[in-house]
Amino acid sequence: MTRRLAFNLFDMTTTGHLAQGLWRHPDTERLQVHTLAFWTAQARRAETGLFDALFLADVLGVYEGYRGTRDTAVREGVQVPNYDPLLLVPAMAAVTDHLGFVVTASTSYEPPFAFARRASTLDHLTDGRVGWNVVTSYLPNAARNFGHREEIPHGERYQIAEEYLEVLYKLWEGSWDDDAVRHDTAGGVFSDPAKVHAIDHSGEHFRVAGPHLVDPSPQRTPVLYQAGASPTGLAFAGRHAEAVFVGGSTAEIVARGVRAIREAAEQAGRDPQAVKVFAELGVVTAESTPAAREKLAALDAFASIEGYLAKTAGGGPDLLAYEPDELVERLHERGASGAAGYNRFPPGTTVGQAIDSLRSVGQGAFFAVGSGAEVADRIEEWAAQTGLDGFNLRQAITPGSVDDFIAHVVPELQARGRYRTSYEETVLRERVAGSGPRLAASHPGARFRGAFAER
Amino acid sequence: MTRRLAFNLFDMTTTGHLAQGLWRHPDTERLQVHTLAFWTAQARRAETGLFDALFLADVLGVYEGYRGTRDTAVREGVQVPNYDPLLLVPAMAAVTDHLGFVVTASTSYEPPFAFARRASTLDHLTDGRVGWNVVTSYLPNAARNFGHREEIPHGERYQIAEEYLEVLYKLWEGSWDDDAVRHDTAGGVFSDPAKVHAIDHSGEHFRVAGPHLVDPSPQRTPVLYQAGASPTGLAFAGRHAEAVFVGGSTAEIVARGVRAIREAAEQAGRDPQAVKVFAELGVVTAESTPAAREKLAALDAFASIEGYLAKTAGGGPDLLAYEPDELVERLHERGASGAAGYNRFPPGTTVGQAIDSLRSVGQGAFFAVGSGAEVADRIEEWAAQTGLDGFNLRQAITPGSVDDFIAHVVPELQARGRYRTSYEETVLRERVAGSGPRLAASHPGARFRGAFAER
Repeated sequence: MTRRLAFNLFDMTTTGHLAQGLWRHPDTERLQVHTLAFWTAQARRAETGLFDALFLADVLGVYEGYRGTRDTAVREGVQVPNYDPLLLVPAMAAVTDHLGFVVTASTSYEPPFAFARRASTLDHLTDGRVGWNVVTSYLPNAARNFGHREEIPHGERYQIAEEYLEVLYKLWEGSWDDDAVRHDTAGGVFSDPAKVHAIDHSGEHFRVAGPHLVDPSPQRTPVLYQAGASPTGLAFAGRHAEAVFVGGSTAEIVARGVRAIREAAEQAGRDPQAVKVFAELGVVTAESTPAAREKLAALDAFASIEGYLAKTAGGGPDLLAYEPDELVERLHERGASGAAGYNRFPPGTTVGQAIDSLRSVGQGAFFAVGSGAEVADRIEEWAAQTGLDGFNLRQAITPGSVDDFIAHVVPELQARGRYRTSYEETVLRERVAGSGPRLAASHPGARFRGAFAER
Repeated sequence: MTRRLAFNLFDMTTTGHLAQGLWRHPDTERLQVHTLAFWTAQARRAETGLFDALFLADVLGVYEGYRGTRDTAVREGVQVPNYDPLLLVPAMAAVTDHLGFVVTASTSYEPPFAFARRASTLDHLTDGRVGWNVVTSYLPNAARNFGHREEIPHGERYQIAEEYLEVLYKLWEGSWDDDAVRHDTAGGVFSDPAKVHAIDHSGEHFRVAGPHLVDPSPQRTPVLYQAGASPTGLAFAGRHAEAVFVGGSTAEIVARGVRAIREAAEQAGRDPQAVKVFAELGVVTAESTPAAREKLAALDAFASIEGYLAKTAGGGPDLLAYEPDELVERLHERGASGAAGYNRFPPGTTVGQAIDSLRSVGQGAFFAVGSGAEVADRIEEWAAQTGLDGFNLRQAITPGSVDDFIAHVVPELQARGRYRTSYEETVLRERVAGSGPRLAASHPGARFRGAFAER
């Protein structure tokens, strides 16, 4: 049976998300990312293209790893300026009916009570179309923006995240009973006070009284996305994530990542297939193979190697600090800090080859250039090789990259039974997890249902 | 010369903002406050009515002072459920062109770096139509939702607020030079790194590195609103506020408040007229006096005295705990906690009279019932008696209270030269302060302009 694949449009409320230097391309509108018009158009476009969701990445600081300064990131517009992603969702929701919105928010720096309220507000305003990409944040500058002298150690960040989620589950799942809101005009009961509960959480990192300020939204807990790759991160994802974003420089490495995620879910007592696994996808497509290759060359003419180096060095090695014939996977042993920047280059890549690869937007394990049929072929192959459930489509320029995908690749995938032809679900969780609107009973968040109810 | 008055539409992202029990009125749409449709309609309505701004109040906890429990507040829907106000602004901005949006946010519980980014994002998205109502939060439950065992003492809250604002001014005014963003496609310079500065703030309460994640928005610092009434609050408002909301149970008391604010501004070295002073206004109006009185009676039939008691006891005395012939102003000496709940009753009011007054939506110093002309007469009188610059119009039902004001009172005030007949300004600050788009040079925030620039 042909398996349908899931596609999110990958974006960020910044000009230079993943395509560095491309802000200079004459056909891009990404210098308008500070306007509502840009985002309402983008949301309409994504819904026209029947994407599962618009997935908004985020960081809370600037990239300063490259040559020990933020100067290149600032000059090249590498994810700076960078606006608050949550604030774009309501305006985009107002012009769409089905599209999901996955927002990235960190568990490391802001109080859970306030975030619980924001997420519940968004879930109400979107009628249950919100997902949350849970991150613990990794940029040293982010830590220094929030009162820390340096990054919170990785293990501790995950301990905080674990307790943070517990607080949220208590607020989202346990604080208000399903029938708490009455709107009983005759009896004068807006909500039944016996069914609205304090949570009185008191843990190592947080103390939160409650009750939650917001009544139950369609999904209560937003759909949970995660991207942990370390053993700690993987275990965390296995426990909590309903969708996981995996990295990897080859299909084989990604396939291992997919298996590892499913095993982690199983170890946490959950259905391994209940976790949907996504990877990043880059596409340059046109009506013909030559036209697509020509388009790629025209895009690559604007690619900024300095911009990519600044981005890569945010969570990995400053490649220019090493000899060209050194293997990238050895740099860690040589004392280079970070980890996120390493896994974009296949094993055996030398520093020189790695730098050279940054001269093109065609990076990563899953990049396809060609006609719609050729791109669809690649996507089907990669899905078969890896067991991936879907992809996050990155953009080189906007709206071009999206429009091209919708015009050339989507119809091809639809004809092969790989892509939806209309929206069928009511809330995002039904689309992602196949059931809903609430968390599955086997999910750890579900144990707080009724946990504070009077017995 | 006839002085034009300013009017904000006073609201809150909750059903029962200031009119308790009125959610049961058959003509109100306030049970829909969790939807985008309610707020986009409300914003359109406010812009049709040429209001200066939609002013959104907020609290971060539930009212539990009345009889020592939150039960009444929950049952009566007294500001609970209560959604995040910032998230409504983008959707409302998308359907309006001129209306301002004043959002309430607290300086006591969330990190300044994140709020700076949110406010700057909103100022970009609205093209400079955002104001911030600076509060330090007063509900004990709010403190317990954010990790504290009890409320932070009043004086300390203001010390934190002072430093919080300093951090924000550094980020908003100083971190990016005016000409930092270049968008120079030929030269490949998105922003000039020499003009984007860390702030490296290190104070008693906050340590924030920067740079600000957001490039300069039209107003940089949003228009600053405040409502401090204590000596500490007054001095704070005198230093920082561009608009102040004053309370008071009689025109005479409000007039003293207006003078006190202007003196505080003067003592802070600012133009006393540069601070605009607002008070709450309630209006029930119709095409004739009898029709308006009839409408008031129909509204009062739904007023919930229990709801009002729960609200009043949130920041003042639980009136039912005292003898009916006791004077309200004496309760503080008798050990009743809080302060905000006292000043709604005129001096000499007994507990019995105070409770009785809660049987009507017609509360407070400035409540007018009658034809448009009669209401306009009252408003002109009150403005003359107090020196107020304007009013925040509260609502009993939505959209009725707003529609009636627009239909009957606005044309009357326009005919008298008291109300704008069209929008003229580009950004909110120009409307409020008469100049802009940036902070006045005499404002303490202005001293951080260029403070981090290379010399």
